[in-house]
Amino acid sequence: MKKMNVFYAQSGGVTAVINATACGVIETARKHKGKIGKVYAGRDGIIGALTEDLIDTSKESPAAIRALRHTPAGAFGSCRYKLKSLDANRREYERLIEVFKAHDIAWFFYNGGGDSADTCFKVSQLSASLGYPLQAIHVPKTVDNDLPITDCCPGFGSVAKYVAVSALEASFDVRSMARTSTKVFVLEVMGRHAGWIAAAGGLIADHGIPVAILFPEIEFDEKKFIARVDALVKEHGYCTVVVSEGAHYPDGRFLAEQGTKDAFGHAQLGGAAPVVANMIKNALGHKFHWAVADYLQRAARHIASKTDVKQAYDLGKRAVELALKGHNAVMPTIERVSDVPYRWKIGVANLADVANVEKFMPRDFISADGFGITEKCRRYLAPLIAGEDYPAYRNGLPVYATLKNVSVGRKLPEFALK
Amino acid sequence: MKKMNVFYAQSGGVTAVINATACGVIETARKHKGKIGKVYAGRDGIIGALTEDLIDTSKESPAAIRALRHTPAGAFGSCRYKLKSLDANRREYERLIEVFKAHDIAWFFYNGGGDSADTCFKVSQLSASLGYPLQAIHVPKTVDNDLPITDCCPGFGSVAKYVAVSALEASFDVRSMARTSTKVFVLEVMGRHAGWIAAAGGLIADHGIPVAILFPEIEFDEKKFIARVDALVKEHGYCTVVVSEGAHYPDGRFLAEQGTKDAFGHAQLGGAAPVVANMIKNALGHKFHWAVADYLQRAARHIASKTDVKQAYDLGKRAVELALKGHNAVMPTIERVSDVPYRWKIGVANLADVANVEKFMPRDFISADGFGITEKCRRYLAPLIAGEDYPAYRNGLPVYATLKNVSVGRKLPEFALK
Repeated sequence: MKKMNVFYAQSGGVTAVINATACGVIETARKHKGKIGKVYAGRDGIIGALTEDLIDTSKESPAAIRALRHTPAGAFGSCRYKLKSLDANRREYERLIEVFKAHDIAWFFYNGGGDSADTCFKVSQLSASLGYPLQAIHVPKTVDNDLPITDCCPGFGSVAKYVAVSALEASFDVRSMARTSTKVFVLEVMGRHAGWIAAAGGLIADHGIPVAILFPEIEFDEKKFIARVDALVKEHGYCTVVVSEGAHYPDGRFLAEQGTKDAFGHAQLGGAAPVVANMIKNALGHKFHWAVADYLQRAARHIASKTDVKQAYDLGKRAVELALKGHNAVMPTIERVSDVPYRWKIGVANLADVANVEKFMPRDFISADGFGITEKCRRYLAPLIAGEDYPAYRNGLPVYATLKNVSVGRKLPEFALK
Repeated sequence: MKKMNVFYAQSGGVTAVINATACGVIETARKHKGKIGKVYAGRDGIIGALTEDLIDTSKESPAAIRALRHTPAGAFGSCRYKLKSLDANRREYERLIEVFKAHDIAWFFYNGGGDSADTCFKVSQLSASLGYPLQAIHVPKTVDNDLPITDCCPGFGSVAKYVAVSALEASFDVRSMARTSTKVFVLEVMGRHAGWIAAAGGLIADHGIPVAILFPEIEFDEKKFIARVDALVKEHGYCTVVVSEGAHYPDGRFLAEQGTKDAFGHAQLGGAAPVVANMIKNALGHKFHWAVADYLQRAARHIASKTDVKQAYDLGKRAVELALKGHNAVMPTIERVSDVPYRWKIGVANLADVANVEKFMPRDFISADGFGITEKCRRYLAPLIAGEDYPAYRNGLPVYATLKNVSVGRKLPEFALK
């Protein structure tokens, strides 16, 4: 009997550990050579499937695949390409099935966030209705940590660790300089809708650092915020502010949207951090510094959380095992068994329950004044950043893998993306 | 005979390894208990001496002092406080000598950059002219790497490593996303006058990353720059830009100074990175992301260079040894013996030759087009970022030291700072 193949694709913003999931998928598939043929990966994510641009991962050595575990970003390329609804663009879904059929693909592993869970679910439904025997399994990935059901999302623990470590270090810096120089340090972090990443900055309060956090979940109140910063600087001589890119006014306007124009009147795209810093300067007169971590935070494999790396790998591994057990339209999840000591296991969620649900910070994870995290939040976050998992270095730089990414021969006519 | 004491102060912007130098000074002084009494540190740098606000480091345990080696920022506080010239404010210099005299201080170790080398030199001259037997020794520290004579400056190697690692990781991220999303990533780094830190971004070219650097040493030419970015994106599909905060137009205006105003007409302080990113967007239409590393880069002890940590410690140690050998008005320096394998030893420079000299990137370290580094520069930089020297972690965060910083009793009348 002909062995069927796997199709794996990375979706949306990449993370420090999405390749660890790829590693888990590929290494596990290779261990089941009796049942699974090749693992194909989509070049640049789902676009690779639509355009029949597949990568043959069997051309990569075991060492190269092993190296994915400690390599950040998307080794096969990812994309921001949301398939429309089945009604609006059924042709794209059908094309996916055609490509899968042409390449004897029986298993589709889609590694992403909420949008890709939705796509994965629809592909599974359509293949069933077309009578094509496909098992579609979503593997969670998002630094935003906003997927439902799973206790946490791979990628988040490492960003959280990066933010906590960086905020701690920069706070030590400000504390050193505060008498004559910088008194307020503002760090902008990711999280357009949910404040999970910003919350990680709250972990440094345990180290004696005065920190105020601006969450997307809490409407921004300038007066209250300035009063909080003023109180912290008066008590400690300095303070650190962690602002989520999604922090916004009651009317929904982001802090970063200040209608800022350059000398020629062109609108300027800025960050929330300089806006907050200037606000403090104008109200309190404090000298400030600000940083915008942007991609540095989600790519920072050098300071990845060991917990996160292990969960990312194990979810990839379990996805393959679930497939071999016949599961379809599911997502392996992290189930927390206990906080201290931290214990977790892998569960399974139905994609019907995952797609298009966003998980925000619960109100009882945020302190009453809206600028800090609670003990409950701390208990949740602490184990997710635990442990270090350093890559190897050569000449002072990490040894990250760049794969050969050999193309699979095309069998179908071209397909134009919308 | 009464044993004389040491006074140690941290000056200017702190670094990931200035405490390693403090560790070297204090541990070495403790090994010479027959000759050296106590090590006092200035609280918030030289201000601590002027205001007679001294810290008694003998109250700290050996473990606490040992922990300074892996703790970023200034454990005793630093300051931006430049003593005026002897003519303009002789009173301040005399006050320093009075405080030293009152606390039996025979050795002054000043740990900083160009300004503090100058101050240290003047204090040495004045104490000689006043007949007070003081040995003033400057210990180099500056992320800017702009001190003369010494091959490199403690603090620089770790920032360079942070910038190279971060730029590499973010470049992997952009490479993953470039087909449908971000094509250009802009990272702003420190270095108001000298481009050493920005140059470290050039090391990622060895990893196949297309990178363009904007140095303060090269006058900014928008047309040439846009052409360079355009060529890199056309060839590779993406590119990374590392821009020094000191990058400027031929008329001296910094890129960051765009006359930007907010909706109310208030001048906004922004960074160079968003300016460069918007410039590329307007000219080429590419989607971009940008980051401003700010304090994160110089505080990043978690990814410090092992070479840098060792040099920082050894220079502190050698400063004490030089003092015990009777040296005065000198600075221990790093002398490079060979590039490959990297060998170095510690030399001695006269402060008269150090004070007020800035070392810029030599033109032959910058590629002909002005946007990259040369092989010569690579040979210079590579060993400085070599090796990792990780701090210990507890619960996912580095264990950094916060000292008790017990005050020494005052003996003199108050002194008002200007």
